[in-house]
Amino acid sequence: MNESWDEKQLIKEGEIAEIVGISHFHHIIKIQADQEIQTHKGIIYTNDFIGRPWGSIIHSHNGNKFYVIQPALTDMIKNIPRETQIVYPKDVGFILLNLAIGPGKRIIEAGTGSGALTTAFAYAAGSTGKVYSYDSRADFQKLAEENLKRVALDEQVEFITRDIRLGFTEKNVDALFLDIPDPYNYLAQVRDALKPGGFFGCLLPTANQVILLLEQMNANQFGFTEVCETGIRYYQTEAERFRPVDRMIAHTGFLIFGRPLIKDEDLMV
Amino acid sequence: MNESWDEKQLIKEGEIAEIVGISHFHHIIKIQADQEIQTHKGIIYTNDFIGRPWGSIIHSHNGNKFYVIQPALTDMIKNIPRETQIVYPKDVGFILLNLAIGPGKRIIEAGTGSGALTTAFAYAAGSTGKVYSYDSRADFQKLAEENLKRVALDEQVEFITRDIRLGFTEKNVDALFLDIPDPYNYLAQVRDALKPGGFFGCLLPTANQVILLLEQMNANQFGFTEVCETGIRYYQTEAERFRPVDRMIAHTGFLIFGRPLIKDEDLMV
Amino acid sequence: MNESWDEKQLIKEGEIAEIVGISHFHHIIKIQADQEIQTHKGIIYTNDFIGRPWGSIIHSHNGNKFYVIQPALTDMIKNIPRETQIVYPKDVGFILLNLAIGPGKRIIEAGTGSGALTTAFAYAAGSTGKVYSYDSRADFQKLAEENLKRVALDEQVEFITRDIRLGFTEKNVDALFLDIPDPYNYLAQVRDALKPGGFFGCLLPTANQVILLLEQMNANQFGFTEVCETGIRYYQTEAERFRPVDRMIAHTGFLIFGRPLIKDEDLMV
Amino acid sequence: MNESWDEKQLIKEGEIAEIVGISHFHHIIKIQADQEIQTHKGIIYTNDFIGRPWGSIIHSHNGNKFYVIQPALTDMIKNIPRETQIVYPKDVGFILLNLAIGPGKRIIEAGTGSGALTTAFAYAAGSTGKVYSYDSRADFQKLAEENLKRVALDEQVEFITRDIRLGFTEKNVDALFLDIPDPYNYLAQVRDALKPGGFFGCLLPTANQVILLLEQMNANQFGFTEVCETGIRYYQTEAERFRPVDRMIAHTGFLIFGRPLIKDEDLMV
Repeated sequence: MNESWDEKQLIKEGEIAEIVGISHFHHIIKIQADQEIQTHKGIIYTNDFIGRPWGSIIHSHNGNKFYVIQPALTDMIKNIPRETQIVYPKDVGFILLNLAIGPGKRIIEAGTGSGALTTAFAYAAGSTGKVYSYDSRADFQKLAEENLKRVALDEQVEFITRDIRLGFTEKNVDALFLDIPDPYNYLAQVRDALKPGGFFGCLLPTANQVILLLEQMNANQFGFTEVCETGIRYYQTEAERFRPVDRMIAHTGFLIFGRPLIKDEDLMV
Repeated sequence: MNESWDEKQLIKEGEIAEIVGISHFHHIIKIQADQEIQTHKGIIYTNDFIGRPWGSIIHSHNGNKFYVIQPALTDMIKNIPRETQIVYPKDVGFILLNLAIGPGKRIIEAGTGSGALTTAFAYAAGSTGKVYSYDSRADFQKLAEENLKRVALDEQVEFITRDIRLGFTEKNVDALFLDIPDPYNYLAQVRDALKPGGFFGCLLPTANQVILLLEQMNANQFGFTEVCETGIRYYQTEAERFRPVDRMIAHTGFLIFGRPLIKDEDLMV
Repeated sequence: MNESWDEKQLIKEGEIAEIVGISHFHHIIKIQADQEIQTHKGIIYTNDFIGRPWGSIIHSHNGNKFYVIQPALTDMIKNIPRETQIVYPKDVGFILLNLAIGPGKRIIEAGTGSGALTTAFAYAAGSTGKVYSYDSRADFQKLAEENLKRVALDEQVEFITRDIRLGFTEKNVDALFLDIPDPYNYLAQVRDALKPGGFFGCLLPTANQVILLLEQMNANQFGFTEVCETGIRYYQTEAERFRPVDRMIAHTGFLIFGRPLIKDEDLMV
Repeated sequence: MNESWDEKQLIKEGEIAEIVGISHFHHIIKIQADQEIQTHKGIIYTNDFIGRPWGSIIHSHNGNKFYVIQPALTDMIKNIPRETQIVYPKDVGFILLNLAIGPGKRIIEAGTGSGALTTAFAYAAGSTGKVYSYDSRADFQKLAEENLKRVALDEQVEFITRDIRLGFTEKNVDALFLDIPDPYNYLAQVRDALKPGGFFGCLLPTANQVILLLEQMNANQFGFTEVCETGIRYYQTEAERFRPVDRMIAHTGFLIFGRPLIKDEDLMV
C-alpha cells in the first residue's frame, strides 16, 4: 500500500462504517476486529479493511466488490431497522435547523418510534448534549436503543418509558419535538418542560391534525408559529441525460414549529 | 417577577438573542449590558431584558412590544447581512445532513460569500470542530467574519484568503463544500484535501453547470453521487383557513453530493 | 411583401389578435379596420397590420416594435381585466380535461367572477356548445360579458344573475363547476342540474373547505372523487444558463372532481 | 324505473362509456347492443345498461357491482393501450391551453406513439378540426388508430407514415407539436408547415435536449419561448384524514412552447 496514507485517513476499530455493495447492499456497523459480515454477495471480514484508507474497495470471500465509507447522517436514518413509520431525511435536516439543535443542547422527543429522529438529535447534540426520548411502548424503545448503539450514539440518549400525559420529568430543555398523533393534547406538558421561548416542533400527516394543533397553540400562547412541508426532488446523475427521477415522495407530513411565549400573568409577582 | 423562574430560563450576558417586533423587525445580537438597540419602533435597552425569562415581552422607549427569544439556526441564516447571494435554509439543513456535519468535524468551504453556510457549519461543528473558509475576496471575508462574531461562532472558523487553484492547505478534512461557479475545475484540489471517501458537496444554479460537474466527478472517480433540489412550502397558520401561502421559492440551486473513492493505482505500493 | 404568403397566413378583420411589445405590453383585441391602439410606447394603427402575415413585426407611430400574434387560451386568461381573483392557467387546463369539456358540451358554472373560466369553457365548447354562467352580482357579469366579447366568445355564453340557492334552470348539463366559497351547501342543486354520472368540479383555497365538501359529497352519493393541486414551474430560456425561475405560484386552490351517482332509491319505480 | 328520467340522461348505443368496477377495473368502450364485456369479476352485458341513466350501478353475471359513466378526457388518456411512453394528463391539459387547441383547429403532431396526445387533440378540435399525425412506424400508428376508433375520434385524424425529415405535407396549420427525441433537427420543417406566429410545442425528458432546442429555436427566430414543467399532487379523499397521497410523479418531461416569427428577409419583396 502507498506509504503516503495519513493516520486520519485509515479505517480504525470503534469507528462507524457503511459497507456498500455494487448492487446496493447497505450495512452500517461499529467496526470490531475479527468479525464477519454476511451479505447476499458473500462474507466480508472486518480485518480486510481495518487499517486501509476510507473509501477503499474491498472484496467478499467470493470476490464481489464493496466500498467502505463513513455514513452520512442521511444514510444512518435511511438504514434504520424499523417497526414504525420513520421521519424522512428531507424533514430531519429542516427540523434540526429550526429547533437549533447543535452541540450541547438538551432535547426532549416523544415518541421514540424506531429512533430515526433520536439518531439525528443525538448526532447533532453530541457528547455534551442529551436527548430524552419518551415512548409508552418499551418494545419500540428497545429497538431504538439497539439502533442507537449500532451507530455509537446511545450514550447521549436517555430512554424514558412513560405516558406523557403525566408530564416530562426534565425542565428547561432547549427543544422539544412531538412525533405523536395528538400533540394538541399535551401543550401544557410541553410548556412545563421547555425553556420559555424555546423551540417546539411537531410532525403531523393530516391537515385535520394541523388545524387542531394550530387552535391549541394559539390558545396556549405559542408564537412564531410556522407550518411547512419539505420536498426533495432527486435527479438522474447521467451527465448526457440530466433529468429528474420519475417518482418522488409527495408527502410525509406537515412540520409545525413554534415557541411558548411568556404569558402576561406569569410575569407578575 | 414570579419567583419560580429557574436560572436556566433567564436571559444572560454573552448569549445570543433575537429581538422580534410585532411588525417583523428581526435583530440578532450578542447580549451586553448597558446597550441600546435602535429600531424603527423606538429604542430598546438591553438592561430591560437581561435577567428576565427567555420568551418575554419587552417594550421600546416609546411603548412598542418586542419579544426576546433565542434564534433558530434558520433565523441566523435568514438575518445575515449580505453582499452576495446566500444559501437558503431549505438547502442548509439537507447539506448538514448529507455531509454528516456534527460536533468535532473539520470542514472546508469555498467561497465564503457572506458567511451563511459558514454560520451553519460552525454552529453544527461546535467548539471542538473547525471550519476553513476560503475566498479570493478579502472584503467578503471581512463581512462574513463580522457576521460570525455577531452570533459568537467566529472562534471555530478560520478565514483563508486564497485562490483555490493553488489548493487547500488542510488535509484529511471530513467534508468539503464548494459554493463557486465552476467546481468542476477543482476536483484534484478537493481530492487532495478531503479524507478518502469523505463528504463532498456543491450548490449550482444551472443545469449546464451540473452537467459539467457530473462529467468531471465521473472522470475523477467520485462515487455515490446524488443530485437533488430541496423545496419548502409554507402554510398560512390560521386554523380556520388552513392553506399553503400563495408564492414560494421555486429554485435556489441544485445540490450535488459525492465521495472521492480510492483509485486502484493509489492502493498499489 | 413576399408573394408566397397564403391567404390563411394573413391577419384579417374579425380575428382575435394579441399585440405584444418588447417590454411586455400585452393587449388582446378583436381586429377592426381604422382603429388606433394606445400603448405606453406609442400608437399602433390596425391598418398597419391587417393583411400582413401573423407573427409579423409592426411599429408604433414613434418607432417601437411590436409583434402581432394569435393569443393562446393561456394568454386570453392571463390578460383578462379582472375585479376578482381569477382561475389560473395551471388549473384551467386540468379542469377542462377532467370535466371532458369539448365541442358541443353544455356547462354550468357559478360564480361568473371576471369570466376567466367562462372564457376557457366557451373556447373549448365552441359554437355548438353552451356555457350557463351564474353569479348573484350583475356588475361582475357585466365585466365578464365585456371580456368574452373582446375575444369573440360571448355568443356561446348565457349569463344568469341569480342566487343558486334557488337552483339552476338547466337540466342534464354535461358538466358543472362551482368556484364559490361554500359549494358543499349546493350539492342538491348540482344533482338536479347535472346529468347523472356527469362531471362536477370545484376550486377551493383552504383545506377546511375541502374537508366540508368531501363530507357532503360522500353524504350525497358523489363518487370517483379526486382532490388535487396543480403546479407549473417555469424555466429561464437562456440555453447557456438553463434553470428554473426563482419564484413560483405555490397555491391557488385545491381542485375537487366527482360524479353524482345514481342512488338506489332513484332507480325504483 | 323512475319515470322522470329524461332522454338525455340515458345511455345510448354509439356513445362512449367507461365501465368502472369497485376494485378499479376501468374499461372504455363504444356502446353496441348485444355485446359482452369480459372482466375479472364476471361478464357484463351491454343490454343491461343501454337505456338506463348514466351513473347507474349494474351487475356482472356473477353479481359484482360496476358503474357506467362517461369517461373524462383524463380517463381516456390514462386507459390507452400503449406500446410507447405516453403523454400524461398533467401535461395534456396545459398543452391544449398553450397551443390554443379548440373546435375547428388543424394540428400536426409527430410522433404518433400510442395516440394519447392524438386523442386529446382530436377531442378538443372536434369534427370540424383535423389532426395530422406523423410517425415513421406504421405499427405504432395502427395501434393508435384502434385507440382512436375505440373512443370514436378516428374520423378527425389522418395518420401519415412518413419520416418528417422529408417535411410535412400540410401548410398553415394552427398548431404543431413534436414529441420526438430531437425536435431541434426539424425547425425548418416546422416553420414550413406552421402558420406564421402559430403555436409550436415540444415535450422533452432531459435538460440536455432542452438546451439544444433552445439554441435552435433562438437561431431559427422562434419567439415567446416558454419552458415549464407541470405537476399534479393528489390528495386522499377521506374527510377526516385529509392529506396528500404519499407518492407522486416527479417528472415526465419539460414542455417547451414558442412561435415562429417572421424573419425580416421574408417580408421583403
